[in-house]
Amino acid sequence: MANPIEFYFDFASPYGYIGAVQIGGLAGKYERAVTWRPILLGAVFKVTGSAPLPSLPLKGDYALRDMPRSARFLGIPLNFPTTFPIATQAPARAIYWIEQQAPDKVEAAVIALYRAYFVKNRDISGPETTADVLAAAGFDRGQILAAVADAAIKDRLRQETQTAIDRGVFGSPFVFVDGEPFWGHDRFDQIERWLRDGSF
Amino acid sequence: MANPIEFYFDFASPYGYIGAVQIGGLAGKYERAVTWRPILLGAVFKVTGSAPLPSLPLKGDYALRDMPRSARFLGIPLNFPTTFPIATQAPARAIYWIEQQAPDKVEAAVIALYRAYFVKNRDISGPETTADVLAAAGFDRGQILAAVADAAIKDRLRQETQTAIDRGVFGSPFVFVDGEPFWGHDRFDQIERWLRDGSF
Repeated sequence: MANPIEFYFDFASPYGYIGAVQIGGLAGKYERAVTWRPILLGAVFKVTGSAPLPSLPLKGDYALRDMPRSARFLGIPLNFPTTFPIATQAPARAIYWIEQQAPDKVEAAVIALYRAYFVKNRDISGPETTADVLAAAGFDRGQILAAVADAAIKDRLRQETQTAIDRGVFGSPFVFVDGEPFWGHDRFDQIERWLRDGSF
Repeated sequence: MANPIEFYFDFASPYGYIGAVQIGGLAGKYERAVTWRPILLGAVFKVTGSAPLPSLPLKGDYALRDMPRSARFLGIPLNFPTTFPIATQAPARAIYWIEQQAPDKVEAAVIALYRAYFVKNRDISGPETTADVLAAAGFDRGQILAAVADAAIKDRLRQETQTAIDRGVFGSPFVFVDGEPFWGHDRFDQIERWLRDGSF
């Protein structure tokens, strides 16, 4: 099988959510797996000098209009969360633990967490809510809570975020196909061409 | 006839070029005219705190890869200019003068200037080169040179740039369809849906 598609994202990113619900189907169509890489954009922004979209002059107002419009355009349910953005250490750590325990369940866990936040308006920043959401998706609530507090898992998230920065990741979603970088859900047409034809 | 599509752009913007060569055909398909609005992104960046893409950490390197790739993806010729970015007062002023004299020739003039810079690697920042390019496209060289130095035309460009900022424009291309804002050549699919169906 060819290289997995590497999918970097932050759980607070609406565009990451829009990408996450599509990348699995796109990968499967071209017989690729997906490597899911939640990261903390806050650490990335310290390097780039950027900030969460809503706080940016002009661009912030536009983004708040573009995010739901892009979801409607693609037919993806999105109810903009009451609290936005949020800290995402808890859901991100949970994903790295699930990857160790049951790699085939990572995609379902990512989608469950993203839907909780961007469709059901549940603030997944707290470990309790992250654990509730994943328990409803079939994971063990106590194990999730332990994982979120686990020092090795915390280190893993820090390391993956640093690796992302070292690879040039500056936003969410950020996708690598055989090393080629694609930023944004609006590059999925180019990703599909790359998967189909190779470099263009 | 329905409202014209308002197309804001900077002549130094590769994504603006990619949008410019497409917007006329898209507008015509839906029986719309295009109002061409060259602006100075440098003035916009003072408001947003941003800077030309190549100077931004991480994002700059990505942009230099994404710009030519996006052009290849769409089959649009692009030879990345040796000098980039450039000051664009001269070509922008020339366009506002042409709009006063011969509004039906604005699109041809925009495309001629953009192609000179992004295909033929001609630095159009100087009035002489802007005048040469437009003379080859059928305009009067002396009149173009006079227009670029004209105080009223200079004012017009400043005013249009300020109007753009007041309307929330922060990048290039930036398009309004019946007041709805769309940023980037990668929103042309949404622009087409909006033109076809109205709001979605």
